[in-house]
Amino acid sequence: MRFWGWGTDGHDEPLPAGALELLRRELGDAAADATPRPPVALEDVRLPAATLTDQARAALVAAVGEAHVRDDHATRVLHAAGKSYPDLVRLRAGTVPSAPDAVVYPGDHDEVAAVLAACAEHGVAAVPFGGGTSVVGGVEALRGPDHAAVVTVDLARLSFVREVDARSQLATVGAGTTGPEVERLLAEHGLTLGHYPQSFEFSTLGGWVATRSAGQASTGYGRIDDLVAGLRVATPSGTIATSAVPGTAAGPDLRELLVGSEGTLGVITEVTVRVRPRPTTARYEVWALPDLAAGIETLRELRQAGIAPAVSRLSDEEETRLQLAMAGDSSTAKIGRAYLAARGRAHGCTLTLGFEGGADGVADQRARVHPVVRHHGGVALGSRAGEKWRDGRFHGPYLRDELLTRRVLVDTLETATTWGDLLDLYRAVGAAIRRALRDRGTPPLVMCHVSHVYATGASLYFTFVAAQEDGAELEQWHAVKAAAGDAIAAAGGTITHHHAIGRDHAPWLGAEVGPLGLDLLRAAKARLDPTGVLNPGKLVDAGPLPGAG
Amino acid sequence: MRFWGWGTDGHDEPLPAGALELLRRELGDAAADATPRPPVALEDVRLPAATLTDQARAALVAAVGEAHVRDDHATRVLHAAGKSYPDLVRLRAGTVPSAPDAVVYPGDHDEVAAVLAACAEHGVAAVPFGGGTSVVGGVEALRGPDHAAVVTVDLARLSFVREVDARSQLATVGAGTTGPEVERLLAEHGLTLGHYPQSFEFSTLGGWVATRSAGQASTGYGRIDDLVAGLRVATPSGTIATSAVPGTAAGPDLRELLVGSEGTLGVITEVTVRVRPRPTTARYEVWALPDLAAGIETLRELRQAGIAPAVSRLSDEEETRLQLAMAGDSSTAKIGRAYLAARGRAHGCTLTLGFEGGADGVADQRARVHPVVRHHGGVALGSRAGEKWRDGRFHGPYLRDELLTRRVLVDTLETATTWGDLLDLYRAVGAAIRRALRDRGTPPLVMCHVSHVYATGASLYFTFVAAQEDGAELEQWHAVKAAAGDAIAAAGGTITHHHAIGRDHAPWLGAEVGPLGLDLLRAAKARLDPTGVLNPGKLVDAGPLPGAG
Repeated sequence: MRFWGWGTDGHDEPLPAGALELLRRELGDAAADATPRPPVALEDVRLPAATLTDQARAALVAAVGEAHVRDDHATRVLHAAGKSYPDLVRLRAGTVPSAPDAVVYPGDHDEVAAVLAACAEHGVAAVPFGGGTSVVGGVEALRGPDHAAVVTVDLARLSFVREVDARSQLATVGAGTTGPEVERLLAEHGLTLGHYPQSFEFSTLGGWVATRSAGQASTGYGRIDDLVAGLRVATPSGTIATSAVPGTAAGPDLRELLVGSEGTLGVITEVTVRVRPRPTTARYEVWALPDLAAGIETLRELRQAGIAPAVSRLSDEEETRLQLAMAGDSSTAKIGRAYLAARGRAHGCTLTLGFEGGADGVADQRARVHPVVRHHGGVALGSRAGEKWRDGRFHGPYLRDELLTRRVLVDTLETATTWGDLLDLYRAVGAAIRRALRDRGTPPLVMCHVSHVYATGASLYFTFVAAQEDGAELEQWHAVKAAAGDAIAAAGGTITHHHAIGRDHAPWLGAEVGPLGLDLLRAAKARLDPTGVLNPGKLVDAGPLPGAG
Repeated sequence: MRFWGWGTDGHDEPLPAGALELLRRELGDAAADATPRPPVALEDVRLPAATLTDQARAALVAAVGEAHVRDDHATRVLHAAGKSYPDLVRLRAGTVPSAPDAVVYPGDHDEVAAVLAACAEHGVAAVPFGGGTSVVGGVEALRGPDHAAVVTVDLARLSFVREVDARSQLATVGAGTTGPEVERLLAEHGLTLGHYPQSFEFSTLGGWVATRSAGQASTGYGRIDDLVAGLRVATPSGTIATSAVPGTAAGPDLRELLVGSEGTLGVITEVTVRVRPRPTTARYEVWALPDLAAGIETLRELRQAGIAPAVSRLSDEEETRLQLAMAGDSSTAKIGRAYLAARGRAHGCTLTLGFEGGADGVADQRARVHPVVRHHGGVALGSRAGEKWRDGRFHGPYLRDELLTRRVLVDTLETATTWGDLLDLYRAVGAAIRRALRDRGTPPLVMCHVSHVYATGASLYFTFVAAQEDGAELEQWHAVKAAAGDAIAAAGGTITHHHAIGRDHAPWLGAEVGPLGLDLLRAAKARLDPTGVLNPGKLVDAGPLPGAG
C-alpha cells in the first residue's frame, strides 16, 4: 500500500461527480476555498533515527535470516503507522512521531517465537503487523517508556491455508493471509470464510482475530470471533494453543482472552476457522423505509426471527439523503429521491439487504423477509442499487484519500448497544460529534448506518465530514474523538464495535471493563509478556491521543 | 435434596419393570446376588469437627446476619459434596472426607462481597454453591493446604428475575435462581431461557454459568455460554461486571474468562441472559436409523444446513438396544424391536428430535428435516416415544440412586470433538471404559449418545454400568475414570463437554489448555483471589482423584 493512504499507486478512486460541489455547499465557506494539498514524497518523510543495537539486530537476523530484517527508509515509513485519520494527516505531512527501527519478516510460528525471544532478551519492543490497516493506532510503532528500540513484526510470510476438513467445516489458515488470499485458497476447496471488512483487500486473518473484526456480511456469517475455532499464539513466555473442539466446559475460554488481544499478549500465527460451502447465489437489493426507527424495528424483527440477510445495512436519514444526492442520475437514485420528495425530504432511510446462499435458500429467505420489510413501510428500490453497493463495498477508504487532499476531515467511529438503548445512543453520539465540530467553527455532516444486527441489539457506524482546521488538524480530530468517546461511554455503548481499541480507544476501555477488568488484562499480560515487549502503548496501556493538549 | 442422592424424600423413581433382571443378565454373576445396600441415616454421617474460629464466624455473621450462618449437622452434610458417583458412594456410606465448617447464605451481591472479604481476612476457604448438583466434585468442601477452615457460600437467596427487556430479549437473573424458577419467572413475561440440563430441577443459573453447562435443548437454544450476555461477579479483589452489549471489539472478552471459572475466580451473583418468546408448539419424535455412522451424518447435515431441531439426540446401537429392552410392551418399543430384528439386532440407532417454536415454524422445520433423515435411512417411530423421552428427561439421576442401592456402578462422562474425529473418539473412549472394567472383573455395559450438535462437531455422552466391586467402589471408579480421561486426551477430545472440570477432571485440564494456559488461569486467579480462598482444589488446582492409590 502507498504510505500516505489506501490502495496501491495508480489505483485512485476519484470522488463521484458533483460530490465535491455538494460537500462545499453543505460544509460552508471553510471548505469552499481549500486548495488541494497533496501528500509529501516518500523520500521527504522525516523519520526518527534508528536505535537498534548491533547485538539486537544480530539476534533478529539469527531468528529470521538476513534477508528478512529490513531497515530501509521505505520499509520503515510503511510500517510507522496504520491508516487512521491522525496517521494519514501526519504521514501526508511527512512528520511521523515514531517508526520501527527495523521490520522483521518471520517465516513460520517458530521464527515468530524466536523473534519475540530476541526482543525480550535485548529489550526491544515488538509491534505485530498484518495488513497495517488499523484505524485506531493499533500498529503505530511505539516503543513505550521501557524499551530503547522497536521493531515491527510483519506476518506477510505466514500466508497459507492447510488442514482443510470440509466435513467439519474447519480450515487452518496462516495469520498473515490477506482477505483475497483467504478466499482464493478456500475457494479451491469450494469453501468460504465469508468475512468482508471494508479493509478486506489488505487486512489479514491474524489482524481480524487480534482486533475482533466484524465483516460487512457478519450478520449472516458471524463476527470473526464467531468464526475462530482454535488459535496458535507465540508469546515471550512460550506458545499457547487452544483446541478447536466444537463445545467444551473445560474451564474459562482462553481463546476469547487471545482473540482481541491486539498483539499485546502474543502474536497469533495460525487460526483454525469455521468455513462454509461457497454461496452459489447472491442477491443484493435496496429498500426505502419511512425513517430510522422503522428501519431499526425491521432489522430487529428479522434478526430475532432468525431470517436477517447476511448483509443487513440501514442508513439513517442523513446518510440516505447524501448518498442519493451523490448518486447522480441512476434510476435508483431517481426513485429514491422521488420517495423522499413525496415525504418532504424530512425522512426516509435506505435499507440494503444482501442475501447469500444456494438459489433455493436465497429465494426462500427473500420470501420470508420481504413481508416483514413491507409491514414496516418498506418500498423496494430494486437490485441495481444493491449491486452497486456491493461493487463499491471496499471503496470508502479510497475516497478518504481524495477528501484529505481537498482538506476535508473525514473519519468514522462505531459502537453498539441493545435494541432498547439504540436510538438513545444514536442521538447522543450524533449530537456530541455535531457539537464538538460546530464549537470549533467547522460544522459537520454526520451520517450513520446500522450494519451489524444481533438478537439483542445492533451496531451504529458514524461517518463525519467537516472542513479541516488548517494547522490544527489533529487538535480538531481530538476534540471530536474525545466528545464522541465520552458520549458513548456515558450512554453505555461499547467504545468500539469492530475497529478495536488500539491507542485511540484506550482511554475508554476502563469505563467498559472496569478497573478490575483492566487489572485482569494486565495480569494476563504480565504472565505472557513479563518484560512488556509486545505492542506497548496499546489496549490496556492508555497514553494521550494524537492532538491532545 | 436428600443428602445421599437425587430428589426429595418421597420422590422415588423405581427402576422400570424388568430392568434389574435385564442388568443382572447382562452384567453377569457379580451383580446377580447383590443384596440391596441402603444409605445410612443422616445422623449417622460422620463429619470432621468444625474448625471455624469465633472471630471468623463473627465476621461472617456481620456480613450476612446470624440467621444466615448455619452449622448444624444436616446443613453441613447437605453441603459436603455434590452428586458425583464418588460423592454418593461416600455419602451413602456415611463417610465424607470433608464438610464445610459453616454454610453462609448471603442475600445480595454486596453480602457476597462481604463474605469473601471476611473469608480473605480470616483465612477461610469459600466454596460457592448453587444447586449442589456437580458431578465432578465442583462443590466438595475442600479447604486446601493454606486454610484452616472452609465455608460454603450457598446462593439460594439470590433468586430473582429483574430488568426484563423483552425488545432486546435480555433479562437479568439472580445466580441462585433454580431452573424451574427461572422458567416460571420468565414465563410471566412470555419468555423462556430454554436451558434444560438433566439437573434442571435443582441446579441454578449461577451454577450453569460457572460450569459452562449445556442443556438438552442446547442445539436449538445454545449452550449457557451462548446465552450469557453479561455478568456480575464478586471477588476478593472487588467486583467485576461485563457489559451486555451485543457485539464489541473492545479487547479480550473477560466474560468468557469468568464463564466456566467454577467459583475459583469469583462468585457470580447476577447474569444478564438472552431470552426468547416461549414456544407455543413442541413436537418430539423418535426415528430409527441404520447405525451410528448414519445417524451422525444425519445430524451433521441437519446442523450444517441450519435446521437441526432444538433437541437432537442420537443413541448408539447399545443404548438403543437397552432402551428398547427396558421399554416393555409399548407400541414404539415393539416397532423398534421389529426394526432391529429385521436387521439381525446387530445394528440400529434411535434418533430423538425435539422441535420447539411457533406452530408454523415447527411444521416448516419438520418438513425440511424429515427428508434428510429419510435420506440417511431413517424410519419414523412416531411421537409417542418422543413424548415419553421428554416426560422423563430429568429422571436419570433418580434411577442412579436405585442402582446404587442395588450395588451397581453407574456413571456418565462426556466429551466432544469435530465431526471428522467423532467416530474415532467414540471407539477409543468406549474401548477404554470396557477394558478398564473388564480388567477388574466387572465387565460393563457401555452406552453412548450424541446430544449436542454444532456445525463443526458434536458431543458424546457415555453411560456405563457394571457390578460394584464390593469394598473397592472408589478404586474401581478411579480405574475407569482415569482410563477414559486418558483416552479422551489422547484422542484430542475435550475432557468435558458440559460437566465442567471441578476436581475430577482437573488432572486433564493441562492436556487441553497446555502448561502456559494453566499458568494464565493461575495468573487471573492470583489477581482476583490473591489469598486463594475461592474453591481450593478445583479447576487449575489438581489433586488426586477419589479412589486413587
